[in-house]
Amino acid sequence: MTAFIFEFIGTAMLILIGNGVVANLVLKGTKGGDLGWVGIALAWGIAVFIGVFVSADASGAHLNPAVTIGLATAGKFSWTLVPGYIVAQVLGAMMGNLLVWLNHKKQYDATEDPAAILGTFCTSPAIRNPFWNLVTEIIGTFALVFGIFFIAGGSVGSESISLGALDALPVALLVIGIGFGLGGPTGYAINPARDLGPRLLHAILPLKNKGNSDWNYSWVPVIGPIIGAMIAAFVFSLVS
Amino acid sequence: MTAFIFEFIGTAMLILIGNGVVANLVLKGTKGGDLGWVGIALAWGIAVFIGVFVSADASGAHLNPAVTIGLATAGKFSWTLVPGYIVAQVLGAMMGNLLVWLNHKKQYDATEDPAAILGTFCTSPAIRNPFWNLVTEIIGTFALVFGIFFIAGGSVGSESISLGALDALPVALLVIGIGFGLGGPTGYAINPARDLGPRLLHAILPLKNKGNSDWNYSWVPVIGPIIGAMIAAFVFSLVS
Amino acid sequence: MTAFIFEFIGTAMLILIGNGVVANLVLKGTKGGDLGWVGIALAWGIAVFIGVFVSADASGAHLNPAVTIGLATAGKFSWTLVPGYIVAQVLGAMMGNLLVWLNHKKQYDATEDPAAILGTFCTSPAIRNPFWNLVTEIIGTFALVFGIFFIAGGSVGSESISLGALDALPVALLVIGIGFGLGGPTGYAINPARDLGPRLLHAILPLKNKGNSDWNYSWVPVIGPIIGAMIAAFVFSLVS
Amino acid sequence: MTAFIFEFIGTAMLILIGNGVVANLVLKGTKGGDLGWVGIALAWGIAVFIGVFVSADASGAHLNPAVTIGLATAGKFSWTLVPGYIVAQVLGAMMGNLLVWLNHKKQYDATEDPAAILGTFCTSPAIRNPFWNLVTEIIGTFALVFGIFFIAGGSVGSESISLGALDALPVALLVIGIGFGLGGPTGYAINPARDLGPRLLHAILPLKNKGNSDWNYSWVPVIGPIIGAMIAAFVFSLVS
Repeated sequence: MTAFIFEFIGTAMLILIGNGVVANLVLKGTKGGDLGWVGIALAWGIAVFIGVFVSADASGAHLNPAVTIGLATAGKFSWTLVPGYIVAQVLGAMMGNLLVWLNHKKQYDATEDPAAILGTFCTSPAIRNPFWNLVTEIIGTFALVFGIFFIAGGSVGSESISLGALDALPVALLVIGIGFGLGGPTGYAINPARDLGPRLLHAILPLKNKGNSDWNYSWVPVIGPIIGAMIAAFVFSLVS
Repeated sequence: MTAFIFEFIGTAMLILIGNGVVANLVLKGTKGGDLGWVGIALAWGIAVFIGVFVSADASGAHLNPAVTIGLATAGKFSWTLVPGYIVAQVLGAMMGNLLVWLNHKKQYDATEDPAAILGTFCTSPAIRNPFWNLVTEIIGTFALVFGIFFIAGGSVGSESISLGALDALPVALLVIGIGFGLGGPTGYAINPARDLGPRLLHAILPLKNKGNSDWNYSWVPVIGPIIGAMIAAFVFSLVS
Repeated sequence: MTAFIFEFIGTAMLILIGNGVVANLVLKGTKGGDLGWVGIALAWGIAVFIGVFVSADASGAHLNPAVTIGLATAGKFSWTLVPGYIVAQVLGAMMGNLLVWLNHKKQYDATEDPAAILGTFCTSPAIRNPFWNLVTEIIGTFALVFGIFFIAGGSVGSESISLGALDALPVALLVIGIGFGLGGPTGYAINPARDLGPRLLHAILPLKNKGNSDWNYSWVPVIGPIIGAMIAAFVFSLVS
Repeated sequence: MTAFIFEFIGTAMLILIGNGVVANLVLKGTKGGDLGWVGIALAWGIAVFIGVFVSADASGAHLNPAVTIGLATAGKFSWTLVPGYIVAQVLGAMMGNLLVWLNHKKQYDATEDPAAILGTFCTSPAIRNPFWNLVTEIIGTFALVFGIFFIAGGSVGSESISLGALDALPVALLVIGIGFGLGGPTGYAINPARDLGPRLLHAILPLKNKGNSDWNYSWVPVIGPIIGAMIAAFVFSLVS
């Protein structure tokens, strides 16, 4: 139960900082309208750092169903814990985004563009093309999960792998690198909970100037990361 | 007494670098007018790094009444030391900002906008709304103090918690994350001493082109951080 | 054989992130068109971090024929392994860039400027002058390999030198520094595999709006780094 | 003798990266013309990281006469070594800048503004006022040397203090913080060798479009840092 609580808390911290920076960049009436993609990439990495640091000891700091499924696929995490982890991650992402909304309440009210508002919840592609957007999410998540195997793993043949507090910095740098190098076409969800939880919240919240929640695209940042994580688990098992 | 001296020194270093970067960005006749919010967020984090590094061994590096009160609320710091720490922090913040002024003396003289000058002392909201500005300061300080519990704490049940030199980097990253993700609406005081000390100094200093010190807003970055820290202490006690 | 595989994997990760950020910056239809040189320099350093972290334990994380030749020249790496390492690095760089292309498939299709497309594969000088471009690549690679001797070496007189996972951060910072300070004139290949592998791939791939692969320049980022690495080995042997 | 050689090498690396980034920003025909002050501040910190990392074991990584004099003033470094260290630092700075020139040879030739060219060698104030420029250099160097006492020192009463390789990162962050927060008015020499050595080189080198070497200002970034370092030594002796 403690593990579930800390997956919830860690994912909430991740989204609080991560979607907070998107809000700071795209909403009207903030001080960070000049953040740019450098700010986005750095902040999401730091968001991961914080989330991992807080939850590492208690839950192994997955914070991402793709990581959970990838580890389970590789036989390094128990499948019986997978559903609970995923539920905690999705709920945590919703909680984190609720706090982003409260933190920027007047900025949400001042923003008239529904696409900007939706962008503070979930991802959308720069050029919409389901197949290639899926490929992008697969490659980005492959890089994430494959890297995590090396950061968290160490010893070959260990029965379970989990992230510790000392892994927070390498994972953060990995996420910054993915943001810089692979995130440009789709906004790099690379995490089903990061996208689905906030999208659900967007559908529920009584936002002024709210548009639709773009459910048409919603499967891409869920399925893509899961495929990418499973490929990472497969390649890791080949080379380790 | 050594602890008080180092709270003074550490907070002075924090404000020297932190409000120095604001001066570099907003005053006329500097070389850093293009710093932007990326520069602000990175520099305040590094300012915390330096302040914590210098004071960690001697005082535990609170540098912030919200941290002091949060730790005391959680039973991890003695209430009898709280008043002395807070006085040292406020005086240190004033000393740091005095040095910012001396460092940029000709730039202050060349700047005609009183709001820009005030901005190098204390925070102001992008959209003024006392209630929601308070919420923003509560959430930002909650993230700060909640994170510090995990960074500084480690062992559950320890009688006291304090930051060591090795905690300087994680705390700095936490502050950078808060600046990126939560600081956009109010300029993230998240520290009563950081706002009140410099505001007092602004009221006293014989600044050319000085405007009023915006005392109407001054309670928000004092009360908000204290509330946020107490909530963090409460939530931490629930989950640890 | 494991060492070759991990040189392949590590170099692929390096190029995936590194040339990914170039694609994010220069191609049409991405979200990172405002990355600028700060983004380029940070991202290539982080790309090195990831590549080194993944491959350090298995291969010593050269990821660069100049590093391999430099270490061999200094007597710290066996010449018999050099050809295999270089082949793995060139193939890895091709694989990494293939993934960059797939990740940005729609962006490549939307980009009409052949020079922008070529820039996501290999380097080109800002002012074309073979002799001085060569000097720039020599100096940059000298700084890289000379720095790596100190980061990886430590003990004087050790028979072999290789990078470990803990060296990933200092090497990354070194590469960021070279990008900021020395990369402006030529785009800092400082790595024959990083330039030659992707240039070969560019010649092969069926890219829309493809221009020529600029083979006239291709020897500079191969020969320059090798000369720079050999000078670094010589100077290191003088002072260590 | 080894110590002098490594002060030379370390300072050369520092200036190679540090003034390299200035060249990348201000000269014509580079790829980094958009670096801005964020790039300058980050790159100088990383330049210090590299210089310290390379020279720490052999010389204690002063790389700066102000650090050398500050440590000697505090009784933590032998005065008999001070002249040799300073000579090595000045010569190293000249060597580093010579390499910056060679690295950017075509860019120097393409740049017509003598002030831009001089800026890649030595500092100049944004608003010229000898007294206040001196104050700025004093405050910046005070922060640097005071911080270094805590980073390098640790144990009170130790007979000598020097920087080790593990101190490279905290010192780099300190320098980044000073660049962000205190460097705006004068370009933060905070190091007599960093300014005087390159200024001497500028006077000697056969540069196209060369202007005067601004010797009128040259005493400020020499005297200011020395005063700042001595104040830091005094305050440190008071509180430690």
